[in-house]
Amino acid sequence: MQIAFLLFHRVTALDAIGPYEVLQRLPNCEVVFVGAQRGEVRTENGKLGLTVDATLDEVPHPEVLVVPGGMGTRPLVKDETILGWIRQVHEASTFTTSVCTGSLLLAAAGLLDGITATTHWGAKDHLEKLGATYTEERVVQHGKIITAAGVSSGIDMALSLAAQLTDPVTAQVMQLYIEYDPQPPYDSGAASKASQAVWDRVEELRVMG
Amino acid sequence: MQIAFLLFHRVTALDAIGPYEVLQRLPNCEVVFVGAQRGEVRTENGKLGLTVDATLDEVPHPEVLVVPGGMGTRPLVKDETILGWIRQVHEASTFTTSVCTGSLLLAAAGLLDGITATTHWGAKDHLEKLGATYTEERVVQHGKIITAAGVSSGIDMALSLAAQLTDPVTAQVMQLYIEYDPQPPYDSGAASKASQAVWDRVEELRVMG
Repeated sequence: MQIAFLLFHRVTALDAIGPYEVLQRLPNCEVVFVGAQRGEVRTENGKLGLTVDATLDEVPHPEVLVVPGGMGTRPLVKDETILGWIRQVHEASTFTTSVCTGSLLLAAAGLLDGITATTHWGAKDHLEKLGATYTEERVVQHGKIITAAGVSSGIDMALSLAAQLTDPVTAQVMQLYIEYDPQPPYDSGAASKASQAVWDRVEELRVMG
Repeated sequence: MQIAFLLFHRVTALDAIGPYEVLQRLPNCEVVFVGAQRGEVRTENGKLGLTVDATLDEVPHPEVLVVPGGMGTRPLVKDETILGWIRQVHEASTFTTSVCTGSLLLAAAGLLDGITATTHWGAKDHLEKLGATYTEERVVQHGKIITAAGVSSGIDMALSLAAQLTDPVTAQVMQLYIEYDPQPPYDSGAASKASQAVWDRVEELRVMG
């Protein structure tokens, strides 16, 4: 079972690394980081380099595809090389998934036409312009297509995916291994939960992507 | 404010990337990935490359240090170059932190002598042999030293750290940005919560590190 993670310049690292950490230890699975060219890509702030180990041509039919998000998705929604590869992979995949604004690429490839999907809260309008119907859920599954909300939601998505690829007990082993017993010190992790003071600070910091 | 993430061969990616994603957008902070040599290191399964951008000598006094874990910590508990750098950083740091088995390196450097600390559940005996007293908490803080439990706990640790570096509203903005509103499909993320079936499967899969 081959699990491919798409990488590109200005990717959000945790979108990919959360699911990677959950899925990499599944029995009989092989993970691979794929991109347009082998070599280093940098995250959206340029502060971290990640390595693309295989080109798109070298990974034509992974059973599972994980498409992360990041500012780098914005130019890629018009990149026919990337979109064509996503369509080709999806034709034969067992699961085609996205985290955060990775769903913009699934939508641009035509995979989300007329179905509900999720993305980072800051990109919901963009997602709808590309043909999907945004829903404020953390993980949305339609058959073999799974979209997850912003950044850290990929961990929850991957645990659900792990159970479907193997079984619930094995998925729980992966949860135990990464000690995913979340205890966030605040409850501000969703658009509907953030206070006005938080939204005001978002504006001040201009961190919206 | 410089925030340094230590990288080394056989690091666990999420240990570093979780806190990185929380801390990288803090105002007036600069993140940097540091290691013994510039260039690529590979994660513990070898399946992902991460880039070391600066050597230890180039980052002598970061205000914040984050030491991730991974199987690669095991040889490093006897590596005087790494341990000496950790001691030097800690002398002047604002915060010295670890995630997962990164605490083995803090302990080996002598920073945890006689205090409680945490680590991945699979490494608690090792941590105690190095002079710390293991406690099954997710985040343990003594003054400027913060240790976090396994892998994903670094996200919770970093949110607490973000609030101390800035203020609670800014920390909540970072939580919102990474949409950290955890909804794990199972409740098996701590040693005390895992069922016997899960522990049996852990043995079968030999995923303990």
